Amino acid sequence: MKIAVMGYGTIGSGVVEVLDVNRDVIAARVGEPLEVKSILDLREFKGDPIEHMVVHDYMDIVNDPEIRIVVETMGGVEPAYTFVRAMLESGKHVTTSNKALVADKGAELLQIAKDHNVTFLFEAAVGGGIPIIRALLESLTGDVIEEIEGIVNGTTNYMMTKMTCEGSEFEEVLKEAQDKGYAEKDPTADIEGYDACRKIAILTSLVCGQQVDYNDIPTEGIHKITATDIQYAKAMGRAIKLLATSQASGDTYFARVAPFLLTPDHPLYHVNDVFNAVYVRGNMLGDGMFYGSGAGKLPTASAVVGDIVELAKNVDKNIPITWEAKKLTLADPLQQRYAFFVRTTADRATVEAVFGVVSYVDAGIAGEVGFTTEVMTQQEYEKKAEQLGEVLQMIRLA
Amino acid sequence: MKIAVMGYGTIGSGVVEVLDVNRDVIAARVGEPLEVKSILDLREFKGDPIEHMVVHDYMDIVNDPEIRIVVETMGGVEPAYTFVRAMLESGKHVTTSNKALVADKGAELLQIAKDHNVTFLFEAAVGGGIPIIRALLESLTGDVIEEIEGIVNGTTNYMMTKMTCEGSEFEEVLKEAQDKGYAEKDPTADIEGYDACRKIAILTSLVCGQQVDYNDIPTEGIHKITATDIQYAKAMGRAIKLLATSQASGDTYFARVAPFLLTPDHPLYHVNDVFNAVYVRGNMLGDGMFYGSGAGKLPTASAVVGDIVELAKNVDKNIPITWEAKKLTLADPLQQRYAFFVRTTADRATVEAVFGVVSYVDAGIAGEVGFTTEVMTQQEYEKKAEQLGEVLQMIRLA
Repeated sequence: MKIAVMGYGTIGSGVVEVLDVNRDVIAARVGEPLEVKSILDLREFKGDPIEHMVVHDYMDIVNDPEIRIVVETMGGVEPAYTFVRAMLESGKHVTTSNKALVADKGAELLQIAKDHNVTFLFEAAVGGGIPIIRALLESLTGDVIEEIEGIVNGTTNYMMTKMTCEGSEFEEVLKEAQDKGYAEKDPTADIEGYDACRKIAILTSLVCGQQVDYNDIPTEGIHKITATDIQYAKAMGRAIKLLATSQASGDTYFARVAPFLLTPDHPLYHVNDVFNAVYVRGNMLGDGMFYGSGAGKLPTASAVVGDIVELAKNVDKNIPITWEAKKLTLADPLQQRYAFFVRTTADRATVEAVFGVVSYVDAGIAGEVGFTTEVMTQQEYEKKAEQLGEVLQMIRLA
Repeated sequence: MKIAVMGYGTIGSGVVEVLDVNRDVIAARVGEPLEVKSILDLREFKGDPIEHMVVHDYMDIVNDPEIRIVVETMGGVEPAYTFVRAMLESGKHVTTSNKALVADKGAELLQIAKDHNVTFLFEAAVGGGIPIIRALLESLTGDVIEEIEGIVNGTTNYMMTKMTCEGSEFEEVLKEAQDKGYAEKDPTADIEGYDACRKIAILTSLVCGQQVDYNDIPTEGIHKITATDIQYAKAMGRAIKLLATSQASGDTYFARVAPFLLTPDHPLYHVNDVFNAVYVRGNMLGDGMFYGSGAGKLPTASAVVGDIVELAKNVDKNIPITWEAKKLTLADPLQQRYAFFVRTTADRATVEAVFGVVSYVDAGIAGEVGFTTEVMTQQEYEKKAEQLGEVLQMIRLA
């Protein structure tokens, strides 16, 4: 069985490595050896053992009838979309690690795959090595999924862990993460939550079977989190984590990406450093949680290769995945209910006049008041916050 | 698509409930409605809504060509084995939650299923609602699995959690667990580790593709764990958990069920109460962990229904699972290496004369010495322990 890899960067080279190192067990599982025949990249890789496989024109792969499975690890929507589409239309199966492509074009590419009796898989696009997508599609099929909460961005989880352990400020930790290669030079997609937003859009689409537009998901990153917030979190016995959330509400879902304050009995509280985890609540299953390396060369490549094995075992058919192009109208985020943690310069009398019963949090910070509210809608909170005057910080409780 | 359920106890009735409550989403996933037609049980269920479905002779199901999928939730090897075998031989797919049956007859029933172009699945036999079996078989297929450590028995995990939180003694906590229905009247299978042993035998069989005989797995339960041990664990900042373990060693595996002392950064440390979790290490994936309800009516039934959906979507074929009847010779457990925690009445001079460098643990217990050893083989430990004199307790570190 011949394979092509498009994009020989970190993940693409990892896929080639996994296929090489675990060649024998993979051949046993598939029933025949898998062989990488072509690698699409702009570079030449002179002197590299893969040099003879390198091609520069994706049509060389399209026109190669020997290649049955194509791996896309280029990232970004274009030209990945054009290439993947052409591969599916020429009757090749595709697996991708590209969350931007899947969030944008998932429904469409699944339909194209179906029309050409091939399969489009994307386990590695969410949670790296964590097999959350296959769990949702193939294991938790007896359940109605009522809630998903994920730590799906390793960079921000590393940063929140560091801020918690060391009490350091955001900028300092970001620099450290960049030095270690955990954060990119332009860290916007991670720290603003855009990456997590695309991932929860994908998971929610799979759960509801319709297109969830990530632009519709209210998204807050972690750049406003300070060492002072961490002090308050500790005073509450909680940890701050960037969560990507999705919650059933009637026939639709609330979705949101934001920092949350978690208690130690929350399954995601102990997920630290660059690890990812996805908590799932099913109406029959109850609580489930999947934990692992959410990024990194080999864990992500391992997920891609898991897809390759499934494609190779089902090479003559389409594996159906329900994700229609029809857009799902998400529930109004203003109506979602939370308890809120608030820091304000207003005095306690004002706090109580506005919010009624609150629980004060004493973190020993002068010149401000910290408190948690009763559960109320986002809209109610915003109305009250306006009356309160200066709000220094608001973080939702999970 | 018509289904039969054999055994209308907790899990069997749960399966009927899940199929009923989630009827519409399940029908959408399968592409047609699923209907329970027959329920095999010794009882009559007079006046119960399922009364009209009850049959007492399994041959009524064997001889019903409409029934394509059979659920076995009776428990125990016989008569479950006879019934399941007959179902497979008559061309019906089977899913079971019965770990005793799978540990004993898994390889054989998979072969019979293959011979009759049907499928035998058993997701619910290990870890209840945790989809660990499908993860191993269908997701982590790019990896060589190097290690599995599982908390796979809810009863004992509940008991260890209670002993840790409340400092109470084993007998007291056992009684409480029995009163709450978490432990059976005869709790032997749980507290002696027999249940966990069958489960790790199944997981190891799936990972190596051969038959692992659970009789070959050294198995210690939790009945010797005392409140004093818990005090020592706390002094070390560790928790005691009953782990079912499997570790690659050359071409075979070490396997063991025993209480272990876990540090807080171990992924299983925070798994408390009746929850189960399975930690997996792949040579490419690194660390992964799957967490959820390991038992209970609906979570386990949810796993069975997940299998039913997979069977219904693949009704005309055998889903191949590699688990040959050929027995795997496990690695010699005496050669497995651990650091050991030991309590003894011997004095420190004797301890050091026998074990060399140790770390003492002060839990404020008079008349004894607690210490942890360097890493050594089980055999080396046993030789030294003999020289030590009276050993009050030994627990391995994980």
